[in-house]
Amino acid sequence: MAREAKPHRSGEFDLIAKYFAPLAAAAPGALALTDDAALIQVPTGQELVVSSDALVASVHFRSDDSPDLVARKALRVNLSDLAAMGAAPVGYTLATMLPRDIEESWIAAFAAGLAADQKAFGLSLLGGDTTATPGPLSLTVTIFGLVPAGRALLRSGARPGDLVAVSGTIGDGALGLDAASGALAGLSAEDADFLAGRYRLPQPRLALGQALRGIASAALDISDGLVADLGHIAQGSGVGMRLRVASIPLSPAAARAVARDGTRRGRILAGGDDYELALTISPENSTKLAGIAEATAVPITVIGEVVAGQGVRVADEAGREIGLPAGGYAHF
Amino acid sequence: MAREAKPHRSGEFDLIAKYFAPLAAAAPGALALTDDAALIQVPTGQELVVSSDALVASVHFRSDDSPDLVARKALRVNLSDLAAMGAAPVGYTLATMLPRDIEESWIAAFAAGLAADQKAFGLSLLGGDTTATPGPLSLTVTIFGLVPAGRALLRSGARPGDLVAVSGTIGDGALGLDAASGALAGLSAEDADFLAGRYRLPQPRLALGQALRGIASAALDISDGLVADLGHIAQGSGVGMRLRVASIPLSPAAARAVARDGTRRGRILAGGDDYELALTISPENSTKLAGIAEATAVPITVIGEVVAGQGVRVADEAGREIGLPAGGYAHF
Repeated sequence: MAREAKPHRSGEFDLIAKYFAPLAAAAPGALALTDDAALIQVPTGQELVVSSDALVASVHFRSDDSPDLVARKALRVNLSDLAAMGAAPVGYTLATMLPRDIEESWIAAFAAGLAADQKAFGLSLLGGDTTATPGPLSLTVTIFGLVPAGRALLRSGARPGDLVAVSGTIGDGALGLDAASGALAGLSAEDADFLAGRYRLPQPRLALGQALRGIASAALDISDGLVADLGHIAQGSGVGMRLRVASIPLSPAAARAVARDGTRRGRILAGGDDYELALTISPENSTKLAGIAEATAVPITVIGEVVAGQGVRVADEAGREIGLPAGGYAHF
Repeated sequence: MAREAKPHRSGEFDLIAKYFAPLAAAAPGALALTDDAALIQVPTGQELVVSSDALVASVHFRSDDSPDLVARKALRVNLSDLAAMGAAPVGYTLATMLPRDIEESWIAAFAAGLAADQKAFGLSLLGGDTTATPGPLSLTVTIFGLVPAGRALLRSGARPGDLVAVSGTIGDGALGLDAASGALAGLSAEDADFLAGRYRLPQPRLALGQALRGIASAALDISDGLVADLGHIAQGSGVGMRLRVASIPLSPAAARAVARDGTRRGRILAGGDDYELALTISPENSTKLAGIAEATAVPITVIGEVVAGQGVRVADEAGREIGLPAGGYAHF
């Protein structure tokens, strides 16, 4: 645990000891957050999977968001990256850049959120850094997982003829962001709450990712938007894709939102923040999907095919190509 | 490489492809920064050492500092943590939080600094995140090293009777910060430049740390200040220490600064940013220090002893205890 710059009147060492060290108590390699670095054992035959995400107040979350939810979302977007690689979580390091006037109650609630999701997903804090910033509260989570060596799910394995599938329902994240910011008129309070909840607290598909090892030909998690992210697989694999918009699974709330205003379909295709998995799979392996969906209790829906060529095209109900905005979702 | 929030008009993907992907080209596990996460192989019998540091403009470096130096210092403070554990560097992830008006030339120079130190210290970029911030430019480096399993240098192994030693010269970092900010009057331009350079570009003692494995009983790198950091070993090991101020090795420039103004001795004892190693060693192993110093071309100086009890006491030339300010160095 590197230490620089007292962020708070109670002192950085006190903060670490009081709020962060308990989160590391179960991991001997964290060395109680009192050493220069942490130690991670990687069993023979496994390799380490590492992903890093930075989150900035007012960019990735709102300054008045519940600190508990900020903590849990920070972990979950990283856990989703592990899920996309087929990895099992081990631990994480956390760099917190805290405004000097932050309330200790914010830190306490933030740590409680971390504790809740550590327990839910089976991982420990391993180390990090706590420092002050004159800017907005910012976090970097670096997460560690294990995968059998050579078996990680990559973006480069899709082949023409493979099916394209997604987990869960698509578009809830982007519509949820709209709902949370009051930009989604005409929805019932129940639907708005459901969508906002999907945005605020994504569900990393860890069991599904691990079940897809050796079965899916490529996978990733949907954070930039369905079409943009599938474009990453297409580019990484040197293939194209054809999707059927009518096949894309929507939650009842998202379906009602789109039925009310058809322009919202753009948010389904190009919005981000779903943190569902998108995958490709050979036709012979696709018979296993139903069993995997049942075993992991996560719906999986085939939405299109991998083709030779490049780019991701989406056809409407009549088979006509739908024009799409360039690029994925930008947070501002 | 997670992707969120375009930080710059040329687009985040373009930035990553243009400036960061070349830094990852030598590491197959980085997956060209195009996947959800990176893969790290840990050979059997080794364990992974992980350290994370956040750096914030105006707190840890000045906004007008050379981007090349900002990059190299960000790597080096983390490399210093690996050195303190006796680990050999492997790679790092980098989260960059960039103001929207940042010049592309800043990023180009920053990447060039990373490239220079990657080459100097033998490591690769493995992954990370690039995002926008409405606040000051901020960075989180998470660094990875390897150490033979169970052989990492910890803070907990010091025993009464051990000697206390440091590498290089002490106090240059803190006096260099003073010099860089014009707060060190009466020094020659040459001395001021030397000290400022020691502050701006620390030298991680990687070869020394690795040579001390199995020989030093405890070690860390001096970032908070000599007495505060030795206090961390004392606390971690449940021992006390007695230091002789006259034994603390000073650079000629620091010696001249202290000779000119005796109050500057406080900066030697309590200043930070030296990134030298402090270590404890049993008397029987201490005969090996001269050979290690010669083999690694880094001076090592014994400055005191470990004693039973607690706390770090410093004696002046006449054997009288010197009073010290509480705590270590704070960056603001």
